Order: sequence, then structure tokens, then C-alpha cells
Amino acid sequence: MKLDFIKRETLKEKPKDESKLGFGRIFTDDMLMMKRDQARGWHYAAIEPFQDLRLSPAALVLHYAQEVFEGLKAYHAEDGRILLFRPWENMKRMALSAARLSMEPFDGDFLLQSIYELVKLEKGWIPKTPGTSLYIRPTYIGTDPFVGVAAAEEYFLYVILSPVGAYYPKGLAPVDIFVESNYVRTVRGGTGTTKAGANYAISLLAGEEAHRKGFSQVLWLDGIEKTYVEEVGSMNIFFKIDGEIITPALQGSILPGVTRDSIIRIAKDQGIPLSERRISIYEIEEAQENGKLEEVFGSGTAAVVSPVGKLVWGDKTIIVGDGSMGQVTRMLYDTITGIQYGKREDPYGWTYELK
Amino acid sequence: MKLDFIKRETLKEKPKDESKLGFGRIFTDDMLMMKRDQARGWHYAAIEPFQDLRLSPAALVLHYAQEVFEGLKAYHAEDGRILLFRPWENMKRMALSAARLSMEPFDGDFLLQSIYELVKLEKGWIPKTPGTSLYIRPTYIGTDPFVGVAAAEEYFLYVILSPVGAYYPKGLAPVDIFVESNYVRTVRGGTGTTKAGANYAISLLAGEEAHRKGFSQVLWLDGIEKTYVEEVGSMNIFFKIDGEIITPALQGSILPGVTRDSIIRIAKDQGIPLSERRISIYEIEEAQENGKLEEVFGSGTAAVVSPVGKLVWGDKTIIVGDGSMGQVTRMLYDTITGIQYGKREDPYGWTYELK
Repeated sequence: MKLDFIKRETLKEKPKDESKLGFGRIFTDDMLMMKRDQARGWHYAAIEPFQDLRLSPAALVLHYAQEVFEGLKAYHAEDGRILLFRPWENMKRMALSAARLSMEPFDGDFLLQSIYELVKLEKGWIPKTPGTSLYIRPTYIGTDPFVGVAAAEEYFLYVILSPVGAYYPKGLAPVDIFVESNYVRTVRGGTGTTKAGANYAISLLAGEEAHRKGFSQVLWLDGIEKTYVEEVGSMNIFFKIDGEIITPALQGSILPGVTRDSIIRIAKDQGIPLSERRISIYEIEEAQENGKLEEVFGSGTAAVVSPVGKLVWGDKTIIVGDGSMGQVTRMLYDTITGIQYGKREDPYGWTYELK
Repeated sequence: MKLDFIKRETLKEKPKDESKLGFGRIFTDDMLMMKRDQARGWHYAAIEPFQDLRLSPAALVLHYAQEVFEGLKAYHAEDGRILLFRPWENMKRMALSAARLSMEPFDGDFLLQSIYELVKLEKGWIPKTPGTSLYIRPTYIGTDPFVGVAAAEEYFLYVILSPVGAYYPKGLAPVDIFVESNYVRTVRGGTGTTKAGANYAISLLAGEEAHRKGFSQVLWLDGIEKTYVEEVGSMNIFFKIDGEIITPALQGSILPGVTRDSIIRIAKDQGIPLSERRISIYEIEEAQENGKLEEVFGSGTAAVVSPVGKLVWGDKTIIVGDGSMGQVTRMLYDTITGIQYGKREDPYGWTYELK
């Protein structure tokens, strides 16, 4: 397939104040669009002006949520280089997500090369203030104008770009987490290991209720015993107990985060003991009671590493350490963001420099 | 709110051969559209030409599947009346679905009155051949152009109409069902009791795999013990064992079907013993071994009542009765379709005549 370029007539005004970018509301001039239908297969690929999609009101995605997405970022290094962080991992995961939703396979290498072209074209939109970046959102949707319950034959796969502000404009600060014991996100056999829109739809109400109670995220427990920790909001989670880092093992209901994987690698390289295993909320409570719950943090593309100050579980409040951010949390944040922004050496081959 | 009418310039050609309508691919001239935003609340309601929606590529529904729908039908009675079947139940369920997905409340009475207006306007599209009907699909989606994970502030609630063929053009015939023991649809605490698009996204792959093996539907077992029967494909399910009808109780993971509820009422009125309770696949297997598995059928708006001829569970094949349709299945189908098409008296007040 060949990537076409459809030129935009007039360019948008770029945001002037990078401290007010926020997340996900501003989009760049252009987008990548790929189309598939049954007769022609993948037959259209173009960088074209960012524009509304025209979808039949019967479009499958609007009724049966046949949709998956990814999230990654392009970073502006101090020396002017443009870096992406393990973008091939997002392509791999998107292929797995699509397969789980019975969507047509796509050419992940072509998609990644096309993303590079798009980011190059839009590089003027990558903000330069420390902590800011250009968020890249590939989205894949089934579009057949057919309200029967079946996998689509027609698809749009598109990528939009959004300049995003620093996740912690005032510096890293611990957040409070609500341990969800009413709603369930997913169980093994479902779509919890994928970035299906469905997982997020199912999570919305719990998130809204937690926000109203003053919490930044919910901690999901397993859907069967409501005991074992799965993930927090849209992040993976890590606990440092008595010198060891523990994160829930990937057992069929947890998203295999790229940041999660990076943390595991770095911790092991630094000689910090780390286990991937089942961990129950009771074990966390007990660790806290014994003064051994040293650090808790979430990991994800948006926040990179997000320290947790306390967990509220029913009528219990589990304070993490002394409530401030821990040393390992800080080290992991600094190491990963250092690699992402090209301030540190990348011994892992994780960064891709866009030239 | 006032319902506007935006007139269509030219009308489509209506399908000539009602034996070839199929399901969900043909749409009528007009649709109902209602819009909500944060500043104005619900501010737009119109019957307007059926047309593509314009959605931002960042629209929430395309990323986080904030979408719910309903399905009901308008029937052409032999005496010329136009009947709807318990449409207020669909409005109630849609409100519950929307609440579960953290969507804004809507005026269900206004929506129902507007649906009546739409169907009246489009009554020339209601097919007349026995078994055919006009399928009504209300759809509710979050549209904010924002890729943060949060409930939407902007919404479209729209209704499209599709003339649909007889579900059994050659008469009722038993179908083969694949008992799914790998994938899970939902668990208690999830969105299984709603008509969220998410539930269907999660189900697609299992359905596709079952189709490839020659089965018409999958039977979902509970997501925890993989033992208790939940529902079949997009239908509720009933078993007649030793003279008693058993259907899984609504315990937080099963869709409360309108047809399901109608069947329970009719069976009880006819003096047929009926229990709503947990029923395991082992109990069904045992009933068959003892020669007591007399009938199995699914229920839903599309098929009304769908007889099951056999269930395949791993390497076991559970034949239902003698493999042909049972008497109670037939009676329930005849009673419900009789009421829906105005051929029988409606002692329940289930039908609404559109005038």
C-alpha cells in the first residue's frame, strides 16, 4: 500500500501557552486515515486534514463497540531530537486487541511507518516545555452500515495527534485511590488484556463515582473473588513491600502495559527484587499494618509513574509509607522519562529517533 | 422539548420483494435525532432525513464505547393496524443502560412519543408479509471530541428504522448451539444487564468462531465457575426439564429481556411450572441422560422464540428431546407472535396501537 498526502489548505493556529495544553482536547492539522472494505481489502492510506468522520448511523462501531485503540507519545528532546518510546510495542498490542475483537488484521509495519510520516509532518506541534509531549492515538473501528451482530467487513484505522501538557505541572505528587469492591472491569476470558473501548465503557461509572468522592482513580480487584489486585484506573500498579516490588501477574485480565514492562526491566537491572504474582488487598493491608508497605505507584503512558499516597477500601484507609513519594517511585520516573526525553542513555534500544 | 420535522427532498425506493429484506441492512427515509450538550442540555429533537453522522475522530464513543442501544419492532396486523410490543419496557431499559454507562438521563416519554411520530411518518416502510416487521433501533452515544477517559457531556440519541424479513422464512427450525467454555461475556458487577455496545464487542470473537464451526449461537456460561448458564448469543434461554420450565435468574449478569419477561408471564398463566434460578450445564447434561431434557429455546426481539436442537459442550453433544421443536416452544412462539401481530387477544396490555 502507498501512503498518499492530501494537502491542507490552511493551517490551524498552534497553542501559544504550553502550560495550558491539558490532555486530549487539541488536535493537530492532519491525521492518518486507512480504509478497508471487503471487495478491495486495505485500499486507502493517506495523511489528510484532521476532519470529522462521516459514519452511517447504523455503523457497527456505534452499536457493538467494535473498536480498539493505542496511546503513545512523541517527545521533544532538549537537543532538538524527536523521540518515540517503544512504538513497535503499541503496534503489536493493537494487533492483539484487534484479533480479540474479531477485526481484520492490518499491516503494523506500514502503520508505524505512516505514523512516523505523520509525526514528521506535524513536528511543529510537538511542545517543548519539560513534561509535555505529542500524544499519538491510533484508533481502529468497524464501520459497516449494518445492525446485525457480526464482525465488520469495513474498517477505518486512523491516527490523530494531540499536544499534551505535563501530567504533573507542579511536580510528582501522590494521589488517593478508591478500592472498587462493587463494580468489576473484566475477568479472564473477557477483553481485559486488550485496549478495547469496551473495557473503558465498563469502567466509566466507577471512575465517575470515585471522582465525586474525591479520588483520582479506582483500584480494580479481580472479578471473581474481589480480592486480588488487577490495575488502577487505566494504569498498571506496583507495590513495594519490605524491599520487594510486586505487581499483579498478567493472567488474562490485566493490560500488558508498555510502561509496566519497562519498569520491570529497569528494576531488575538495578538489582531491586521484583515479583509478578497474585497479590491480594488483604496482603497490602497487612503489609501496611506491619509497617512494610513502603511504596505504591501506577504506571501508564499518560502519567509514566504515578505515586499513590493512600488507598481507601470500604471503611479502611491504607496509608502508603509516610504518605509522600518513595525513592524507587522517583528513580523509576526519572529513569523512564530520562530515556523518553533523551536526557539519559538508552541501554535498551527503546527509543526511536525520528529523522 | 419540541419535536421538529425536517422534510426530505426525495424519497428512497422501497424494497419490492419482502422475502429478501434480511436483517438490518435497509433503512427508511427518515430518522429521529436528539442532541445534548453541556451548555444547553437536550436542545435538539427532530425527525430528519436518514443521513451520515458527522463525528470528530476524537469522539468519545469511538474510543471508550460510551454507547447503549435498544431493539423493538412495529408490526403490520392483518386488519391494517400498526402495533408495537411493550415499547415502554425498552425505554425503561435504555434509561438503566445509560445510567450504568454514566450517560446523561433523557426523557423516555418524549423519546417514545417521538418514536411513535417517526414510525407513523414511515409507516409505508412496514412490510406486510407474515413474520416481517419494522425494526426500531434507538442508539445513544457520547460524542465529545475529547480523548480523556471520562463520561461525555455531549450526546446524540437517535433512532433508525429498518424493514426486516421473517426470522424463519421457512418456518421455525431448531438451531445448534455451541457451549462456550473459553471466552466470557461478563460477570456480576459488569455491564451484562444492560444493552451496552461493550457486551457485544466482547462477544464477537466467540460468535465468529462458533459460526465457523457451524453453530448458530454460543451459550454463555457464568464467568466465575464456567458452570451456570447465562444466555445464548444475544437471547435469553429456557430449558424444559421434566415438565418444568427453567430459566436463569437475573442475578446481575444477564440481560432482562422483554420477550423473556413475556414468556414467564404466559407460561405462568397457562399453568406451566416455571422457575427462575441458577441452572448448571451439568444439570442439563444429566437431564438429557435421564431422558428429561424436553425442550430448549432462546428468546429475543429478533427471533421471538428460537428452538434449540442440540448443545455441543466440549466433546459432549446434548440432544434436546428428539431434536425437533417442542410443543411449549411452539405454543409460546404462537402466543407471542399472535399478540404482536394482533391475531390474538392481548390480555396483558402489551400492545400499543399506533393511530
